[in-house]
Amino acid sequence: MLYIHGPSIPTLLGLEGIRAEGEDDLVYPIEYSEGLKVVSIGFMIEDPTDSIIWRGPMKMKFIKQMIANVVWGDLDYLIVDCPPGTGDEPLSVIQTLGNVTGAIIVTTPQKLAIVDVKKSVNFCKKLTTPILGVIENMSGFVCPKCGERVEIFKSGGGETMAKEMDVPFLGKIPLEADIVEAGDTGKPFIYFYSQTQTSKIMEEVINKLVKN
Amino acid sequence: MLYIHGPSIPTLLGLEGIRAEGEDDLVYPIEYSEGLKVVSIGFMIEDPTDSIIWRGPMKMKFIKQMIANVVWGDLDYLIVDCPPGTGDEPLSVIQTLGNVTGAIIVTTPQKLAIVDVKKSVNFCKKLTTPILGVIENMSGFVCPKCGERVEIFKSGGGETMAKEMDVPFLGKIPLEADIVEAGDTGKPFIYFYSQTQTSKIMEEVINKLVKN
Repeated sequence: MLYIHGPSIPTLLGLEGIRAEGEDDLVYPIEYSEGLKVVSIGFMIEDPTDSIIWRGPMKMKFIKQMIANVVWGDLDYLIVDCPPGTGDEPLSVIQTLGNVTGAIIVTTPQKLAIVDVKKSVNFCKKLTTPILGVIENMSGFVCPKCGERVEIFKSGGGETMAKEMDVPFLGKIPLEADIVEAGDTGKPFIYFYSQTQTSKIMEEVINKLVKN
Repeated sequence: MLYIHGPSIPTLLGLEGIRAEGEDDLVYPIEYSEGLKVVSIGFMIEDPTDSIIWRGPMKMKFIKQMIANVVWGDLDYLIVDCPPGTGDEPLSVIQTLGNVTGAIIVTTPQKLAIVDVKKSVNFCKKLTTPILGVIENMSGFVCPKCGERVEIFKSGGGETMAKEMDVPFLGKIPLEADIVEAGDTGKPFIYFYSQTQTSKIMEEVINKLVKN
């Protein structure tokens, strides 16, 4: 929801070109399916290639509006997708919502990413936001021709980091061309590739979160 | 230089734990080699896992200081590495420097990335910053066991986008485990893996930029 500079929800869900409807100050979310409503700045700009050049204070204002003015109705979960790092966006979300159940932290396994993600863990600790868990993404790649497993971005870095920093670990999702294809064609992987091993891993991650 | 929330220069160059020296308001860059001096917020914080929770205005101030107060000496090139997107950081850099030779835009090939990178191209156009070119990163992967080429993040998206938006295209750098390993161990790929095909591609990209 909060990738102000690069919203991906319209592409990921095949909703490009759709516009959110509004009334006075209110914004109505897009109903993707019976269980999923979404809002993205991507539904509010005329030209999808137009850049939004906003400084922090403008972003803070937009985030506050998005949280206050979207007519969500009853929700089981409100998931706010934030850009990487510890900048204005996650800070504004946590401060505006006031009462966040917890943060899910996604990383890739290599050290270069782990160095940064440790900062995100400490960011949550500073703000006393509970960490629901760490997901290790792009964790290993299996060659579709010969079956060889290649640890392109290495493997295990997220799991080790979670142990070191004493936060739950949720699972390792491998790097896969089908996940990229699913994203580009607007077909949620977990529905359209539901029989794959990777989809089962994703479901296990979700189950751990839902039971929380 | 300007990954305030997740500085990577210390890890990428094997300079972790090194601190930049200062005097009054001035900061001295770290001399990595005869031809390369670097500055990063990573050289200025005590604990590398500490998160820097700064809003936009603080970042703007820091960026201005970094540009004004670092004792660079004579330079052929000043390269400012910016986080993805069109937020405070690139805007502050362009506005503070005033006279930027140009921007180099790095993307991955898949549509999900291209959608965002088109915004970066338009961001530069709005600010009348010339675009020196587009680099397509993670462009194809060759299985080290069987030699099969797999387009995990697809291929050609950056090249097509550059044509469409009428900006120069600089080259396609493949996805490679050795690049990740080089980054994690602080060994610049182009020096330590100089005999590889991928290193040659990187040199071709550099040559195009130097001749510019």
